[in-house]
Amino acid sequence: VDAQEPLIGVLGGLGPLATADFLRQLVQMTPASRDQDHFRSLVFSDPRVPDRSRAILGEGPSPLPQLLRGVAVLERNDVDVIAIPCNTSHYWLDELRAATPIPFLSILEAVRGELERRGVSGAIGLMATSGTVRSRIYQGHLAEGGFETIVLSDEEQTGLVEASIRAVKAGRIEAAAQLARGAVARFENLGARAIVLGCTELPIAAPEATTASGSPIVNSTAALAAACVAWATERTALASRAALHQFETAR
Amino acid sequence: VDAQEPLIGVLGGLGPLATADFLRQLVQMTPASRDQDHFRSLVFSDPRVPDRSRAILGEGPSPLPQLLRGVAVLERNDVDVIAIPCNTSHYWLDELRAATPIPFLSILEAVRGELERRGVSGAIGLMATSGTVRSRIYQGHLAEGGFETIVLSDEEQTGLVEASIRAVKAGRIEAAAQLARGAVARFENLGARAIVLGCTELPIAAPEATTASGSPIVNSTAALAAACVAWATERTALASRAALHQFETAR
Repeated sequence: VDAQEPLIGVLGGLGPLATADFLRQLVQMTPASRDQDHFRSLVFSDPRVPDRSRAILGEGPSPLPQLLRGVAVLERNDVDVIAIPCNTSHYWLDELRAATPIPFLSILEAVRGELERRGVSGAIGLMATSGTVRSRIYQGHLAEGGFETIVLSDEEQTGLVEASIRAVKAGRIEAAAQLARGAVARFENLGARAIVLGCTELPIAAPEATTASGSPIVNSTAALAAACVAWATERTALASRAALHQFETAR
Repeated sequence: VDAQEPLIGVLGGLGPLATADFLRQLVQMTPASRDQDHFRSLVFSDPRVPDRSRAILGEGPSPLPQLLRGVAVLERNDVDVIAIPCNTSHYWLDELRAATPIPFLSILEAVRGELERRGVSGAIGLMATSGTVRSRIYQGHLAEGGFETIVLSDEEQTGLVEASIRAVKAGRIEAAAQLARGAVARFENLGARAIVLGCTELPIAAPEATTASGSPIVNSTAALAAACVAWATERTALASRAALHQFETAR
């Protein structure tokens, strides 16, 4: 039975509200008419992990040891896949992948897939933590897909994007929304033809699917949730076919 | 360090959207200005647990064996407390409590505490699954607190309340909201002076804190989340005092 019931592992709490938002999206994207149609999941939320952005900027300790402890919790509970609804943490994805045989669904890959699916062309405005921006993980990954990336000046990055993210983390959603709108407008002035919300706090501040002028806004939380649903749906179908094959062979 | 960092265990997926809503409330009720101020949690979501309401009504298998397996998952991960954001499952709370030394925070106790805190007097309209209504777990628990409970006729219970709950489980939130409004109006006609949303799907359909005429609506999901935050806050304070005492004794 277990082979047909994949267990989705989630390393959460980075931040906590983004994790709740991710779970909501995961549920709402699952084709289901009753509880029993949904997928099983195990969510370990550890908000005490040191700030990822500050670590990249050299302003705080590395979160890697505690991220590895979180992965170990999920591994020992036999999850079949791991998703981390936090973009900045993906700076350490190679190290996390090296530490466990369990596959990870990368939020960067999910976002690039969504840009391709929506047929986006032209420069992409990257809204993310200053750590993510500085690390260039998104710029590199999007360039591999042929996308050009725009980022804001240091001052605007701190005063608009980073300020919006910190407002969400403090539960000040209205203030966060106003700052996010300011950042989106600035990216459009700079010529962005699409926006990537490359931090899972940002869709809480800016839940819209397009800008006021109609450019696509790609929500990294939603993209990761969609990748999880696709993975679990495929896995369930494979297990069903394997069970059917075994049944027919045994007859 | 661990003694000062309580781990909140959540048996979720009953239903899945209610679990995401519960986590959001838990985060938003926690006094915090940054990620690291939030509490750790482990959420095992198992939506494949057989329908609780149908089991009570004698229309389906008992969910108890699978609920016990979920509790065992949480216990083996050393959670410090267990919350189940599903009212109907509390029909089996005595059996679950007998199976583990880990304390449970009861959603029924949380709701009664909230009715007392809000100074509610007069008859309480109980909106819950038909299983919860039939089992009389709420009527008994509220009567111990001196509260009288009103329920709807079987026809209205099925056509309004149960239909609203099933619509939430199927992701049809607009339809669910309309049915819930109909049920609330019916309870007010019957003389209810307050409404208990005694099923964690219902606050998704009816998120308001009061009825149109100003009577209190008590949200069981929010009441349980508040009880978790209060528990974890107290636990953290106790651990801090113990650590301080140990430090001063050792000097």
